Amino acid sequence: MTSTDTVEISGHLMDSGILSRVLDDIREYGGDYVIVRFDLGHDAGDISHAELKVSAEDDEALQRLLMRLQTRGVNQVDPGVAAVKVTEQDGVFPDGFYSSTNLETQVRLDKSWLPVANPEMDCGLIVEDTEGEPRIHTLPMADVRAGMKVICGASGIRVDVPVVADTGGFGFMESDVSSEKPQAVLVRQVADGMREAKAAGKKVLWVGGPGVVHTGAAPAMVELVNAGYVDVLFAGNALATHDIESALYGTSLGIDLARGQGVEHGHEHHIRAINTIRKAGSIRAAVETGVLTGGIMHALVKQEKSFVLVGSVRDDGPLPDVYTDVIDGQRAMRAELTDVGFCLMVATMLHSVATGNILPASIPLVCVDINPATVTKLADRGSSQARGIVTDVGLFLEQLAGELVPEYRRR
Amino acid sequence: MTSTDTVEISGHLMDSGILSRVLDDIREYGGDYVIVRFDLGHDAGDISHAELKVSAEDDEALQRLLMRLQTRGVNQVDPGVAAVKVTEQDGVFPDGFYSSTNLETQVRLDKSWLPVANPEMDCGLIVEDTEGEPRIHTLPMADVRAGMKVICGASGIRVDVPVVADTGGFGFMESDVSSEKPQAVLVRQVADGMREAKAAGKKVLWVGGPGVVHTGAAPAMVELVNAGYVDVLFAGNALATHDIESALYGTSLGIDLARGQGVEHGHEHHIRAINTIRKAGSIRAAVETGVLTGGIMHALVKQEKSFVLVGSVRDDGPLPDVYTDVIDGQRAMRAELTDVGFCLMVATMLHSVATGNILPASIPLVCVDINPATVTKLADRGSSQARGIVTDVGLFLEQLAGELVPEYRRR
Amino acid sequence: MTSTDTVEISGHLMDSGILSRVLDDIREYGGDYVIVRFDLGHDAGDISHAELKVSAEDDEALQRLLMRLQTRGVNQVDPGVAAVKVTEQDGVFPDGFYSSTNLETQVRLDKSWLPVANPEMDCGLIVEDTEGEPRIHTLPMADVRAGMKVICGASGIRVDVPVVADTGGFGFMESDVSSEKPQAVLVRQVADGMREAKAAGKKVLWVGGPGVVHTGAAPAMVELVNAGYVDVLFAGNALATHDIESALYGTSLGIDLARGQGVEHGHEHHIRAINTIRKAGSIRAAVETGVLTGGIMHALVKQEKSFVLVGSVRDDGPLPDVYTDVIDGQRAMRAELTDVGFCLMVATMLHSVATGNILPASIPLVCVDINPATVTKLADRGSSQARGIVTDVGLFLEQLAGELVPEYRRR
Amino acid sequence: MTSTDTVEISGHLMDSGILSRVLDDIREYGGDYVIVRFDLGHDAGDISHAELKVSAEDDEALQRLLMRLQTRGVNQVDPGVAAVKVTEQDGVFPDGFYSSTNLETQVRLDKSWLPVANPEMDCGLIVEDTEGEPRIHTLPMADVRAGMKVICGASGIRVDVPVVADTGGFGFMESDVSSEKPQAVLVRQVADGMREAKAAGKKVLWVGGPGVVHTGAAPAMVELVNAGYVDVLFAGNALATHDIESALYGTSLGIDLARGQGVEHGHEHHIRAINTIRKAGSIRAAVETGVLTGGIMHALVKQEKSFVLVGSVRDDGPLPDVYTDVIDGQRAMRAELTDVGFCLMVATMLHSVATGNILPASIPLVCVDINPATVTKLADRGSSQARGIVTDVGLFLEQLAGELVPEYRRR
Repeated sequence: MTSTDTVEISGHLMDSGILSRVLDDIREYGGDYVIVRFDLGHDAGDISHAELKVSAEDDEALQRLLMRLQTRGVNQVDPGVAAVKVTEQDGVFPDGFYSSTNLETQVRLDKSWLPVANPEMDCGLIVEDTEGEPRIHTLPMADVRAGMKVICGASGIRVDVPVVADTGGFGFMESDVSSEKPQAVLVRQVADGMREAKAAGKKVLWVGGPGVVHTGAAPAMVELVNAGYVDVLFAGNALATHDIESALYGTSLGIDLARGQGVEHGHEHHIRAINTIRKAGSIRAAVETGVLTGGIMHALVKQEKSFVLVGSVRDDGPLPDVYTDVIDGQRAMRAELTDVGFCLMVATMLHSVATGNILPASIPLVCVDINPATVTKLADRGSSQARGIVTDVGLFLEQLAGELVPEYRRR
Repeated sequence: MTSTDTVEISGHLMDSGILSRVLDDIREYGGDYVIVRFDLGHDAGDISHAELKVSAEDDEALQRLLMRLQTRGVNQVDPGVAAVKVTEQDGVFPDGFYSSTNLETQVRLDKSWLPVANPEMDCGLIVEDTEGEPRIHTLPMADVRAGMKVICGASGIRVDVPVVADTGGFGFMESDVSSEKPQAVLVRQVADGMREAKAAGKKVLWVGGPGVVHTGAAPAMVELVNAGYVDVLFAGNALATHDIESALYGTSLGIDLARGQGVEHGHEHHIRAINTIRKAGSIRAAVETGVLTGGIMHALVKQEKSFVLVGSVRDDGPLPDVYTDVIDGQRAMRAELTDVGFCLMVATMLHSVATGNILPASIPLVCVDINPATVTKLADRGSSQARGIVTDVGLFLEQLAGELVPEYRRR
Repeated sequence: MTSTDTVEISGHLMDSGILSRVLDDIREYGGDYVIVRFDLGHDAGDISHAELKVSAEDDEALQRLLMRLQTRGVNQVDPGVAAVKVTEQDGVFPDGFYSSTNLETQVRLDKSWLPVANPEMDCGLIVEDTEGEPRIHTLPMADVRAGMKVICGASGIRVDVPVVADTGGFGFMESDVSSEKPQAVLVRQVADGMREAKAAGKKVLWVGGPGVVHTGAAPAMVELVNAGYVDVLFAGNALATHDIESALYGTSLGIDLARGQGVEHGHEHHIRAINTIRKAGSIRAAVETGVLTGGIMHALVKQEKSFVLVGSVRDDGPLPDVYTDVIDGQRAMRAELTDVGFCLMVATMLHSVATGNILPASIPLVCVDINPATVTKLADRGSSQARGIVTDVGLFLEQLAGELVPEYRRR
Repeated sequence: MTSTDTVEISGHLMDSGILSRVLDDIREYGGDYVIVRFDLGHDAGDISHAELKVSAEDDEALQRLLMRLQTRGVNQVDPGVAAVKVTEQDGVFPDGFYSSTNLETQVRLDKSWLPVANPEMDCGLIVEDTEGEPRIHTLPMADVRAGMKVICGASGIRVDVPVVADTGGFGFMESDVSSEKPQAVLVRQVADGMREAKAAGKKVLWVGGPGVVHTGAAPAMVELVNAGYVDVLFAGNALATHDIESALYGTSLGIDLARGQGVEHGHEHHIRAINTIRKAGSIRAAVETGVLTGGIMHALVKQEKSFVLVGSVRDDGPLPDVYTDVIDGQRAMRAELTDVGFCLMVATMLHSVATGNILPASIPLVCVDINPATVTKLADRGSSQARGIVTDVGLFLEQLAGELVPEYRRR
């Protein structure tokens, strides 16, 4: 029997194309809809408000559709209260579990709305009693344990789509992109985003691939580490190894000009650099014992900044600091997200997507890559707050360092 | 003080451009050379032979240069005997360890030459005594233990560049690519490579990305599994999850025609499919209990074929069968390489590079992707035997199934 | 002083995202708007209707904004009658001329609405008296002559957005793309589009680049010419020359597998093939005298089909049939558009964009290329009816020939 | 009956891979070879010298093979004297005409060697008597007239491969690309190339696409025009129109950050900008009458620099300065090549390939594009002296202006 419910969405519905994506979702999930009400602002800046009656073939299908629509910021008009089930198996959610979004989320267990502690995509929502007070937080599937209480179905849940990207603060993209020097404007906007985060006492998170080293941007990044604009780095074995290899052996990595890629200069240097750090015990130990005296990783250690290196199946070695278990790596990344106020992703698809999965949508996020596919992929995966810049990573970081560290430019 | 040694290389030196790459290596490693002898065949088909005197600033630099040159198939004229050191730390090779290639390799410990059991890139060569007989095999850095005996330096080592790709057997690329229907010829050559491997009692290894499912090639691949042309599959969480999601929910993954990519249909289906398999315990259990009744993974289980799924940092879930530790995953992949006689890589850069790292150069290898960068990257990493085909994965597998399973075409 | 006017738009406004593009246009042109009325269908399939009051700083700015909005299918509620000015210079339109779209367009000179004969982008609308009856047709800037009557401003003009792509006939993309074999479905849809056009007595127009020859698709295309599915070919010097070179010299053009491009086999063959045809006088003459005996151009001549070859600045030769004046070439292309009912663009950005510029939006249009940029570019340029398929051109045409000419498949 | 001849080639044969390309050519043309002599330098810097006996099935095939080999710098040991035939038709060369290369070429008519005046690819070599002295120059096929004397066959011709790129002067790529800041080094090398050309009294030729304007690099380019680093510009209708549109209407062209392309801002502005310049009569007239007051084209006119705009089939308008006949356009481009000492190609495949066709190989040539395919294509077409830089055009020109015009940086 057909099940129905009424949902609502507010925002710049006309401008943002969000409504058509909502209707696409309904069709894709085999549902149907009637538009019940549509309050349209009369002026350009006004917020519109829509109410839709959505239906699906049965309640299970409806719940799944409602959960899906919440990823777009669509809430039930009468959300009711949330259903809670107890998990029976480690690492397995109950059937019908609510699959979380990276949006600000609130849950009503009986009367009052409780905020979800750490919004992240594709997790379950766990209810815990802390000193008699229920507390709700996200938990990835791999970490759930039997006996935990998990929110199921779409009732009693409300999400807020961030407005930061549209009107306030960072305002990336929305500000007037001058025809004079757009690339300089972009660099300045990223610099401003970092400055604002720092001024607000927040951390700047970088996610980087080996292209940072190949394009010769390592000195610029070292400068930015030393100037305090890199609080945390998420990367893989490759960035750290190329950086260390370059510092240890002075390898002229060069640039394959015709193809725009760093030339692979044989694994001989590469594997030997890894062995050297393994012998030292860790990157930090290699810095402290004077084995490693330059480069990005060296600067991070010296400045007492954090880094999380997570391995992949193609890794050589790897470096002793690399998490070889990717789920452990994800946990370590999550642990560093507290107080992050700005995120810059540079030249890596794998780690950018991984970070996009766990980063709350409320944190400004810029992705820089010479390959348009990386930028597009990130946006497609649900990191809707992501702003992409398709440009040369080397020249971009060079200009960013010049903008944030004026002395660097003059050298 | 300058150290020198004399090296030699044989082959179609004029045609292959190999000699110029050797000279590039010498320059890059800061070495120098004099060409001592150059025997040039007089006719087109003749093998040439070159002898070079190479020099470097000291013996350490020379040894590293010699090791580097071996990745090109350059051997010492007077190789002497191999030096052996004992490792002092778990997971760390001795300084000056010989970093292996994926070429056929032989080592002389005193008089006779011993073959290296399982050629693989970037490993150490371990000497073991098995019933009084020394035996030499590759071992990745992470698996080395204190007390093991490791070959150091370049002396006493000889490599053979495979000639299979140039003249014999598979003969891919070398055969006359007809102007009539090149794409059909390519499909037939891959089919022939698989048939030859099967006829020789060898296994066919597939390495695949989620693009296999997105492009609608899953039915073609199922057909090929059932017909016996897929003995082992290496993949990640994504291929298996998309395949299972499609089988469980009938998700019409569709194709984003404008961008040529599978549309990301929200994590809602995705994460729920993973949860379902986790609940069943494993993919095999899900097949046996009737939870999973179609798709590629189902076919592999039914046909009792092997698969190795290795995780990455961007994974959701993951599926219970996925190795979350990438080093464990590499070990599981290595264990499946025995008797592989042909390898086809489809639509994945990460797992293709990972497989290229561990696959002996003597095994024919074809890489199919719509993105030229994947193909180029693989060749750059040292998988010189790799042949690349830049084409639509969906149409290619469709035609391959039609070629290998004639009934499939007629349906 | 601010000028205002009221405009309206109808259609699937919620689904199509068209409204947000309209609002973007208003902002970009420095205008402002108030939404006056918004009739929303209650059900999914209903047509919505919006009325906006738009304003701009003066009448000139308003007129330009209104003209811009018409490219989106937005018409004035009270269109009034069209203003007509007389041109004063050859090749120059009067200030404020109406710049046409490729949509179905009607003009009201006094009372009744007159259809515009041949919708094309970026032209002027010319009023001619034919036997006392006013007739309105598009004319490109280069062809306008002093004394002609040209429509100016946005008043008295109405455009219709084609609905064919959304609901009826061809229905490409909208139909259910099966998860089973999407690529086969796409091939069949293109085949159906061609069959429908032929059944309706319409012509099938092909626009092709040299990639058709490089990917080995020439035999498939010859088959399609012979079967009557190629009525007109628009191309450049390169497609014809490569095709003829291949026919004359049996050049094995081959495929550069690693890069997915036809290898450039030196201009020696190329330039000699051109010289040979120039000596014969024309491609037709070369066929008739037995100089040219195979290939695509040969088949077109034999089947008495049309082709228009237009040159570019990078051309060698060119072939005697090539229009070296690009404006003459555009005129020749326009002359072939009559009765075209389907258009397929294959492997060429230059000629595809050129054809997109002059093709009415009402004609179904499919663009096939392995490079996503070509497909995207075409859509961005205003050929909104364009459907793109990112795939291997060789395999696609092979399958298309197999679909339309069943005997071809069996060979 | 088999015909044979002996050819020679000198150079860094080992390093350059040139020999394997020569042997590929022989095989491709169905010929055969024996290596007669091979003098190998003993040291790294030595020049090697090879002699090959090549054979083909008959003299015509041999002559074509010899002509092909000359494009690689391979000359006959005993070149004999050149054969001359008289053309019988306008626009058609005699059978067996020598198809020219862009290398320095000399011809022996009887005793002495005469230089070919203006090396260009794919032309004929015309013998003219000027005051009793024979003079030899290239002529494109379209310009040949009946009665002209044309060199036929490969005898009596000698080519010189430029060594400039390998050892002297510009030395791009060969110089040590520092690992510190490769991108800065590249900018400096291009700047040095331009400075050297200017210091030698030579002209700097730019070839540009509309991406120069889209990426916001117009102000940087204006600066470089004003500072004297742009003597000639080759472009199409698009670059000039976008530049003029931006100057006339202050259009904020912006950047589509997600896709890295300039957004197409509707043809409305575009077509109106063209109409305005057509009304003025020419770009120069528009500048002189104060209609056009800014941008790249304005700066070129003000600085009395040359530009050649050549049309293409996709052009709107076009601007009155555009050559609509592409062969006329090629002639106009050729006429500007005198005294060009450096060429920079930016963001255009069409005009870059066109320029590469007519530019002597002795002129240093750098191609900058964010798309690797453009750079690769250019090299494949025979512009072997081309050096490619895959980077962001906007940031690159910004840095180049900062390097060449230090005041620009400080603003």
